[in-house]
Amino acid sequence: LGKMKGRKARWAVRASDMSKKTFNPIRAIVDSMKVQPNANKTMISLSIGDPTVFGNLPTDSEVTQAMKDALDSGKYNGYAPSIGYLSSREEIASYYHCSEAPLEAKDVILTSGCSQAIELALSVLVNPGQNILIPRPGFSLYKTLAESMGIEVKFYNLLPEKSWEIDLKHLESLIDEKTACLIVNNPSNPCGSVFSKSHLQEILSVAARQRVPILADEIYGDMVFSDCKYEPLASLSTNVPILSCGGLAKRWLVPGWRLGWILIHDRRDIFGNEIRDGLVKLTQKILGPCTIVQGALKSIMRTPQEFYHNTLSFLKSNADLCYGALAAIPGLQPVLPAGAMYLMVGIEMEHFPEFENDVEFSERLIEEQSVFCLPGKCFEYPNFFRVVITVPKVMMLEACSRIQEFCEKHYQSVEGAQEECDK
Amino acid sequence: LGKMKGRKARWAVRASDMSKKTFNPIRAIVDSMKVQPNANKTMISLSIGDPTVFGNLPTDSEVTQAMKDALDSGKYNGYAPSIGYLSSREEIASYYHCSEAPLEAKDVILTSGCSQAIELALSVLVNPGQNILIPRPGFSLYKTLAESMGIEVKFYNLLPEKSWEIDLKHLESLIDEKTACLIVNNPSNPCGSVFSKSHLQEILSVAARQRVPILADEIYGDMVFSDCKYEPLASLSTNVPILSCGGLAKRWLVPGWRLGWILIHDRRDIFGNEIRDGLVKLTQKILGPCTIVQGALKSIMRTPQEFYHNTLSFLKSNADLCYGALAAIPGLQPVLPAGAMYLMVGIEMEHFPEFENDVEFSERLIEEQSVFCLPGKCFEYPNFFRVVITVPKVMMLEACSRIQEFCEKHYQSVEGAQEECDK
Ligand SMILES: Cc1ncc(COP(=O)(O)O)c(C=O)c1O
Ligand SMILES: Cc1ncc(COP(=O)(O)O)c(C=O)c1O
Repeated sequence: LGKMKGRKARWAVRASDMSKKTFNPIRAIVDSMKVQPNANKTMISLSIGDPTVFGNLPTDSEVTQAMKDALDSGKYNGYAPSIGYLSSREEIASYYHCSEAPLEAKDVILTSGCSQAIELALSVLVNPGQNILIPRPGFSLYKTLAESMGIEVKFYNLLPEKSWEIDLKHLESLIDEKTACLIVNNPSNPCGSVFSKSHLQEILSVAARQRVPILADEIYGDMVFSDCKYEPLASLSTNVPILSCGGLAKRWLVPGWRLGWILIHDRRDIFGNEIRDGLVKLTQKILGPCTIVQGALKSIMRTPQEFYHNTLSFLKSNADLCYGALAAIPGLQPVLPAGAMYLMVGIEMEHFPEFENDVEFSERLIEEQSVFCLPGKCFEYPNFFRVVITVPKVMMLEACSRIQEFCEKHYQSVEGAQEECDK
Repeated sequence: LGKMKGRKARWAVRASDMSKKTFNPIRAIVDSMKVQPNANKTMISLSIGDPTVFGNLPTDSEVTQAMKDALDSGKYNGYAPSIGYLSSREEIASYYHCSEAPLEAKDVILTSGCSQAIELALSVLVNPGQNILIPRPGFSLYKTLAESMGIEVKFYNLLPEKSWEIDLKHLESLIDEKTACLIVNNPSNPCGSVFSKSHLQEILSVAARQRVPILADEIYGDMVFSDCKYEPLASLSTNVPILSCGGLAKRWLVPGWRLGWILIHDRRDIFGNEIRDGLVKLTQKILGPCTIVQGALKSIMRTPQEFYHNTLSFLKSNADLCYGALAAIPGLQPVLPAGAMYLMVGIEMEHFPEFENDVEFSERLIEEQSVFCLPGKCFEYPNFFRVVITVPKVMMLEACSRIQEFCEKHYQSVEGAQEECDK
């Protein structure tokens, strides 16, 4: 009995605090949207950022062949170094190297998707109790990871009227002595926006003045439409140290393969060995991405330009089509995207008095039209919904016409809405 | 200036406490062993638990073909559910299902290697400040993960003279009100031991009496030599809830592919939904293993029995050969393994007075004989070294004869050693 040292007489196994703090808002919101689609209309899901679901955007055959070659070689079945094979890191380094932001293999860490890249970058830069700055609207994983780690998040505003540029004053006002990292996501999920060179320079000025290192989420890097240029943030930074996170998921259309990376940009030696060593140590916990994908990387990075070009021209034509169709609908305010695979659409809620908010709007859109878009709430941005533009053109058109029918049915001019309230 | 709110006038980016606490003892010990191998002898590395390095243990051709089929199908490029495809989880469930420990797809979570399985299991079961019980000697990742998470580790002893069974009295004496989990590794790295049914039942009795849930690291499950039977811990448990961690790494000879799993065994509903939900939430942070490997799982699990059989008979013959050779060397005390891919060898240090400890013994073995074995210190177990038995037979023999030469050169009878000291 003395031996028991207070062990419980009954079983009591509780989930850890950390697991309880790990919260995926999209899951929670979507699960709470308990609605049935309209049985008379086939479902069109414009909700998940997975370009592969409709089968219209296969990866290049050379990408698949590269994997088969890696398998056949028999060389990539064993453990790789926890940060990835040297040859694979060399390939990524030379691919993203530029004279303004030089990269060598030692600056590259391979990870299990861009998600793990972000997790490791946050883990090495931020202590519990510190805070990070994240965009609103923004990708929900930042907050999920941070809160799971006991890190406070502060949202800085993006401005829809300025093509989702950062409200720099607001950003700077949030920085305090506990701010350990600024996350910049460019091109943006959910906005589809692409920052100009000058705007990126302004962001860097804030970071330099306030001495805040940057986590650049550049998973949609190079995924910009023809009339626009993508600048990797690090290529414009003379002093601010940057961890740039990326991966194969989006540009190579293989999100399931879980290959991501961190590029360490630190020309002023501000991160120094401490951050580099810290990252290496953290990779030793779960030992990197699948070695077959690593082995195939060299060939994957050499996919013919035509492949990227085709994806982007498809996305641009869908973006234009969707934007054009939705812009013509009274009550909706789409914001034209310049890259990535998304479009944000403002809902003039005063014209839809039947719906309490964007979540209800989205629910009813499923119920009546079997069109599923994520409500802005998933991105901490009410009164909007997000459209994924990777769907086949006919589905895109059909979805837009159903959204039009839905809006026309529920739209009320402001006077009408007012009367409605007065009753 | 008021705006600066105390931001530093100079850059000061420090690595997080967590990254500093993340410590891989094997790396640290090996890196500190700054020795050059003997240039006249080719290096024989018996140090890493990677069965693929020598090319003599390729995976089965059907395993590779399964991957190619998954690639060709084009069905496995997108995101899978964060816990893995339902069909893949069904396959694992039916593979490991038995009437004493039934499993369904909902009881299976796919992870990025067994390492991530262990990380998730610890993350959901243990809060910082609590403690876990881990074997000594044991696989170093347990301590690495725990300390990185602020979890205390308590080592329970394994008894070499009882084929590395657990010292159950010692184990039970360590349990206190803060003990959140008992890790049982069977078959064992580094010992190559396989627990008997009755010993496993005794371990379960302790856990049941003390109400401590078990993390069973069964990555070497089914890898036992012909004269011995492997019992999954859960098949013997009537009440103790168990998270069994496993993966493709060892038995299918593809550690680089990073596919692991957690099997949730909880017939008394002690974990309940809380632990299950916690695990699901934790998987949403980095989104599971490579989908191509997941897609290939069904075929991989159906690899012809002959393949496993061949691996095991090779390992057994190497184990016997190595054990026989080393047992004949004065000053060494190998312990015969019954499974996995390792053998632990006791060093009678009193007969090797030149060497301060097992690390120096191992260093000098590299320097003189170009044979690299990990010192016991890597497993928290001094005066031993570990031999990996996956090398080709000729290398195994050559290594043993070099070890013999080395020991013969340095061995001193106890009287001689005594004299040496008296001088
Ligand atoms: C902005 C952003 N960052 C990161 C990720 C995660 O990428 P991965 O699938 O490589 O983990 C996504 C995925 O949708 C994303 O939209
Ligand atoms: C006992 C034990 N558990 C877990 C692992 C990790 O397995 P994986 O490579 O699937 O992460 C190893 C690898 O050597 C091991 O020896």
